[in-house]
Amino acid sequence: MGTALAETLMNAGHDLTVWNRTAAKADALAARGAVKAETAAEAVAASPLVIVVTFDYASVESTLKGADLGGKVLVNLTSGRPAEARRTAEWVRGQGGEYLDGGIMAVPQMIGQPGALILYSGSRTAFDRYEGELGALAEARFMGTDPGVAPLLDLAMLTGMYGQIAGMMQGVALARSEGMSAADFTHNLLMPWLRAMLELMPGWAEEIDAKSWGTDVANLGVNGVALRMIEQAGREQGLERNLLAPLKEVVDKRVADGNADHGLQSLVEEL
Amino acid sequence: MGTALAETLMNAGHDLTVWNRTAAKADALAARGAVKAETAAEAVAASPLVIVVTFDYASVESTLKGADLGGKVLVNLTSGRPAEARRTAEWVRGQGGEYLDGGIMAVPQMIGQPGALILYSGSRTAFDRYEGELGALAEARFMGTDPGVAPLLDLAMLTGMYGQIAGMMQGVALARSEGMSAADFTHNLLMPWLRAMLELMPGWAEEIDAKSWGTDVANLGVNGVALRMIEQAGREQGLERNLLAPLKEVVDKRVADGNADHGLQSLVEEL
Repeated sequence: MGTALAETLMNAGHDLTVWNRTAAKADALAARGAVKAETAAEAVAASPLVIVVTFDYASVESTLKGADLGGKVLVNLTSGRPAEARRTAEWVRGQGGEYLDGGIMAVPQMIGQPGALILYSGSRTAFDRYEGELGALAEARFMGTDPGVAPLLDLAMLTGMYGQIAGMMQGVALARSEGMSAADFTHNLLMPWLRAMLELMPGWAEEIDAKSWGTDVANLGVNGVALRMIEQAGREQGLERNLLAPLKEVVDKRVADGNADHGLQSLVEEL
Repeated sequence: MGTALAETLMNAGHDLTVWNRTAAKADALAARGAVKAETAAEAVAASPLVIVVTFDYASVESTLKGADLGGKVLVNLTSGRPAEARRTAEWVRGQGGEYLDGGIMAVPQMIGQPGALILYSGSRTAFDRYEGELGALAEARFMGTDPGVAPLLDLAMLTGMYGQIAGMMQGVALARSEGMSAADFTHNLLMPWLRAMLELMPGWAEEIDAKSWGTDVANLGVNGVALRMIEQAGREQGLERNLLAPLKEVVDKRVADGNADHGLQSLVEEL
């Protein structure tokens, strides 16, 4: 990801000083015109804008220990939790720097391409000052001055994706248990269905905000029966796991609590 | 659903004899021109094609007990498990009838509209004979002569949808924990992201069929870290449940087994 970010900034005409703990990665960028720093501290000293992406927040702090962050804007694109972002922001501000946390919603291949998005939170003035540079990497959206907001929303978006993946894998496993190929099932049945069902979500979101829990389509009672059938059919087909078990559990709880006539959007009340 | 199916067939110009255990529902259809039968057996006797949709397979058999199914084609659109469909098919054939099982991939409002799909399995000759009538209800696709195939694929498609729903609800809960509205999060962040991520699935399906478990994007090691962050951030934000817990468990297992460099598509091996 660091290489993709650096190359995209260079392609946009920016001068870069780079550092990586694996020197060969910095060498490759140096061959394309970047200045290679010998230490992270030297890289920080070279520019007013410092962009860092590492494995986790702990290594952000250990990497930058000893660097002078006074007067710098530190943009931290490492993935992490809101609590970690807030702690790192404190640490940077304590050294006289400004802090922007960023959550990258893209794989490296997408950086600099349409569709890539980076969410930012923290210092508004830092974001405004470097919006051009940040916008070269991906669409740059400022989500709030609490540095924890961008990582939280990053994780919330990933959560949605992981649900989609869990459903696909479990559905493919069911289809394969009867000899259908994953590609046949996915291309011809699953994709058009999921594309259509996905479009129900904005309506559910509005109902959630309005605390409107009723439904004129399938209620929790009906969905509970379907989730029980999925679990039982999976067992009968020889599947070893049911990735939807916690969803079934929460639907069953709502039904047991007397809310069988509510819609699926009401599940958010239990989370 | 029964009313929607009956109305759609009448709109397509077919003569119907209807029966419902709640007489008022049959009365409403009779007012629109259907013949109202006094018993289910009388409704079965009236036509060569019998379409039944009830709460579950047990009530299909109890409803039709005493009816003469000899020479009839029974199309059962009730949701159920493959094992139930196979048993019901045996029962119908034992009485001299032909059996078609159908899985409806639509809500009642969609019946007769573009986008509605019904999967069929069982008697191929019955399907061919009534493809016109069935095609008036929804796109009709014949999936195989084993009557269990249509209900299995119905459940497999629902499984995909439930994963998507679980991910959305958990993601919305995370976003709301920081004060963002469900609609703002869903419209502006989640939907474009999920639409884009959904399009990765056909590629994964082909890799699954080819048993190609490598990846050039995020491997299971990276995804395991993200799933751990999601779980921990959820706890820190005060969420009560993690609907993705089984996905995290299976990713962790693959990583522990030495497959951290595999892609998410490889998870199907554990299901």
